[in-house]
Amino acid sequence: MIDMTKKLNIAIVGLGQIGNYLYNELNTKKKDILKKTGKIISVSAISAKNINKKRKFRINKKIFYKDPFKIFKNNKIDILIEAIGQSDGISKKIVEFALKNKIHVVTPNKALISKHGNNLSKLAEKNKVNLEFEASVGGGIPVLRTIKEGLATNKISKVYGILNGTCNYILSEMEETKSGFSTVLKKAQLLGYAEPGNPKLDLNGYDALAKVKILSALAFNNKVSNSKCLMEGIENIEYKDLEIANQLNYKIKLLGITEIVNNKLFERVHTCLIKKNTYIANVNGVMNAVIIEGNPVGESVLQGEGAGPGPTSSALMSDLLSILRGNIKYPFGISDNKRKSPSIYNSDNYSNALYIRLEVKDKPGVLSEITKKFAKHKISVQRLIQIPNNKNKTASIVIITHKSLEKDYQKCIKSFKSNKNIIKNPTLLRLF
Amino acid sequence: MIDMTKKLNIAIVGLGQIGNYLYNELNTKKKDILKKTGKIISVSAISAKNINKKRKFRINKKIFYKDPFKIFKNNKIDILIEAIGQSDGISKKIVEFALKNKIHVVTPNKALISKHGNNLSKLAEKNKVNLEFEASVGGGIPVLRTIKEGLATNKISKVYGILNGTCNYILSEMEETKSGFSTVLKKAQLLGYAEPGNPKLDLNGYDALAKVKILSALAFNNKVSNSKCLMEGIENIEYKDLEIANQLNYKIKLLGITEIVNNKLFERVHTCLIKKNTYIANVNGVMNAVIIEGNPVGESVLQGEGAGPGPTSSALMSDLLSILRGNIKYPFGISDNKRKSPSIYNSDNYSNALYIRLEVKDKPGVLSEITKKFAKHKISVQRLIQIPNNKNKTASIVIITHKSLEKDYQKCIKSFKSNKNIIKNPTLLRLF
Repeated sequence: MIDMTKKLNIAIVGLGQIGNYLYNELNTKKKDILKKTGKIISVSAISAKNINKKRKFRINKKIFYKDPFKIFKNNKIDILIEAIGQSDGISKKIVEFALKNKIHVVTPNKALISKHGNNLSKLAEKNKVNLEFEASVGGGIPVLRTIKEGLATNKISKVYGILNGTCNYILSEMEETKSGFSTVLKKAQLLGYAEPGNPKLDLNGYDALAKVKILSALAFNNKVSNSKCLMEGIENIEYKDLEIANQLNYKIKLLGITEIVNNKLFERVHTCLIKKNTYIANVNGVMNAVIIEGNPVGESVLQGEGAGPGPTSSALMSDLLSILRGNIKYPFGISDNKRKSPSIYNSDNYSNALYIRLEVKDKPGVLSEITKKFAKHKISVQRLIQIPNNKNKTASIVIITHKSLEKDYQKCIKSFKSNKNIIKNPTLLRLF
Repeated sequence: MIDMTKKLNIAIVGLGQIGNYLYNELNTKKKDILKKTGKIISVSAISAKNINKKRKFRINKKIFYKDPFKIFKNNKIDILIEAIGQSDGISKKIVEFALKNKIHVVTPNKALISKHGNNLSKLAEKNKVNLEFEASVGGGIPVLRTIKEGLATNKISKVYGILNGTCNYILSEMEETKSGFSTVLKKAQLLGYAEPGNPKLDLNGYDALAKVKILSALAFNNKVSNSKCLMEGIENIEYKDLEIANQLNYKIKLLGITEIVNNKLFERVHTCLIKKNTYIANVNGVMNAVIIEGNPVGESVLQGEGAGPGPTSSALMSDLLSILRGNIKYPFGISDNKRKSPSIYNSDNYSNALYIRLEVKDKPGVLSEITKKFAKHKISVQRLIQIPNNKNKTASIVIITHKSLEKDYQKCIKSFKSNKNIIKNPTLLRLF
C-alpha cells in the first residue's frame, strides 16, 4: 500500500524509445502529478543494457543500474515501470520480483501480459499491488480503462478493430502510393513505424493477436486464453489485391476480432475486405481504432495514435496516476478467482466468404482444375476474376466465394499444394 | 466514506426514462456489481412526481416517496442518483442537501453541472464525497473519465465534436430524405430523439454549449466558465443549405468546440461546413463524437450513442462503480482551490470564413446593395451563388467569404436588418 505522506520512488527498467520518453515525462510533469494526485514522485533508478547509447532525452547516470535487480538492493522502490518488452526472460522475472515484493508494476508489454497475464495478475492480487498495462493495447487510446471502468456493467458481445499501426500504415501507404509491399515496408522502417531488424511480429498478426487476447480477457471477464487462433498477417498482400479490392468497392484492413459465439470465445486476426463507406475502412495510416459492442451502451468507438513513444507514455502515465490516486484494483477488472477459462470456439466451423488469389501458370485447363477443387470441397464461387500477366506467362485468379466453412477452405487450400500449376501460396482476405 | 462491510443504500430521484432504466439496471445487475466492486447495493428509495405514471420497468411502490427530501428522514442513504434534470430548483436543492450530508451524488444533469458545477464540486470536496457526472456529456461515451484519467497528464489544447444527437439526427435525416427542417423535427419527436414539448434547448445549441463548458473545465483544469459564448443552433438550416453544401463538397454539422487561443478560453457552438472526406463529417444520425487534441497523445477520437436511457445508464453505472470502488476523487480532476477562472477569448477577434445565405427580393440592384455592404465591412467574398426562386419572385444569395473578423460580420449582418429587400434573418454556417 502507498503511504500518502512520503515521496514515491519510481524505477524504470528499459530505456528504449518508450522508457526514455517516459523518463523525461516523469521528470518534467512532477508538478502536474502532484496537482492531480497529491503525491510527490521521484525517478530514483533507471536501468538498461547500455548506459551510453544515444538517447533523445539525457539520463541521469548517477541513478543508472546495469543490473536491474540491483536497483532494489539500494532503493526502496514503490512503482516499477517495465519497458523492456520481452514476453519472458528478464521482463517476466523482474515483474514477478516486483509484485512479490509489493511493488506496483506498470508496463506496455503486451507480449508479457498476453502470455503470463493470468499468473501475474494473481500475484498482484495476492500482494495487494497494482499491475497496470493500459499501454499494451491501442497506444494512447485508453481502451482497457474504458472497458474496465467506463463501460463497467455493460454486457460486451464483441470487440474488434485496427490494433497494429505498422500494418495499417503499410496497407494505407501501398494504396496511396501504388507501391509494392517491400518498398513500403522499407519506408515504414525508415520512418520508425516498423522494427528495423525483425518486423515479423507486427506483419504476421502476432502483435495484434496479443492485444486481442488482452481485450478478450477484460471484455468477457475471462482468463487470457492460450488457445491457437486464426492468425493471418499482411505479408502476402500485393498492390494488385488493393487494386482489385478498390474496384469491388472494398478496402483491405488487418483486423483483430474477439467475440462470443454460442457462449464460446472466438479470437482471430486476419486481413479483411471491408466496404469502403464504413467507419473502420477509413481509419488510415498509423491510427488504431477499437469498436466495442455492448449492452446497454450500443456501439462505442475509440480511435487514436496506436504507437510511438508519445501516445504510449500517455497511457503509461494514466496507469501511474491511477496507482498514485490509491486505486488498488484487480488487473483484469475482477478477482482472479472469479475469472474462468473460456471455452474456445472451434474455428473449423466458422462460416465466411473469402477472397482467394491464386498465382497460376497461364495454360489451358488450369482454371477448370481449380474450380473443380472448389466444388469438391463444397465451396461455391460467387465471383471469379482472371488477370493475365503476359510478362511471364502466369495469371492471377481471384475467387470470391459464398459463405463456406473454414475447415473446407483449409482442405481445399491444402489440396493446392501438390498442384504444380499454382506457383505460390494463395493470398486470403476475409469478407467483413 | 463508504464502509466496506455493509450494504450500500441508493436513492433515485427522478423516474423519467433515464431514472427508470437505471432503476432496472441496478436491480438486475447486483451480482455483477458485487463481482466488480465487492459491494452489495440496494435501491432503498425512489422518488418522482407521479407514482402511477406508466413506466417501462415496474417500480416498487413500497419505497416510493413523493417528497424526495423525506427519503433521508427514514433511510440512511449512501449514494443519491439525481435524474430530474433541472438546472436549478429541486435538482440543485437535493444535490446540495446530499453533498452537505456526506452522501455521494451521481447525475446526468448537464444543465445543473454547467451552471452550478463550481459550487457543487467545492461542496463535494469539503464533505469528502464524490460528485460524478459522466452521463452529462456524450451519453454512453466515457469521455469525462477519459480526460480525467485516461489522458490525465496530457496537455490538451482543443476538444470538439458532435455533442447533440438530436441536431445531428435532424441534419443527417434532412440530407438523406431530402426533407425540410420541420418535417424531420416532427419525425425526431415521434421517435423520441427530440423533446415532444419544447425541443428548443437542443436546437438552439444550449444543450451542446452546456456540454462544452463541462468539457472545458476538465480539459483545461479551469473553473466552469459562465461567460457569454458564440451559440448558434440549427433552427435556420433549410434543405437547400444541405444541397448547396453537398455541391461544394461539404457536410453541415453542429459542432461544440473549446480551445485555448493565446492562453484564453474560446468556447463556441455553431453549425459548420466540414469537408466531406473528414472523419467528423461522416458521423451521422444520433451518434455523438468527441475529438481530443493533446500532447503527447496526439488526436484521440471517441464515438458512441449520445443519448437514450441505455447509453446514459451505462455512464451512470460507471460513475456508481467508481464510487463503490472507493475512488474518492475531485469532481473536476483537481482540487477546487487549484482551479482558476479562465480568461475568456474575445470572440469579436475570431477570424473565420463564413457561408451566409440571404433570402432577398429578386429585383435589380439588390445584389449590388449587398456586396457593397460586405465591402464596407471589410469582408471579402470568395464565392457567390445566386439561386432564383421563381415562385415568389425571391432569390437565395449564398456568399462564402474569405476569413474576416467576427465583429465585422456582426456589424454587417446588423446592417441588413434595415434592408427591406432582405426578407429573412440570414443563415450562417462557419467553415471548419
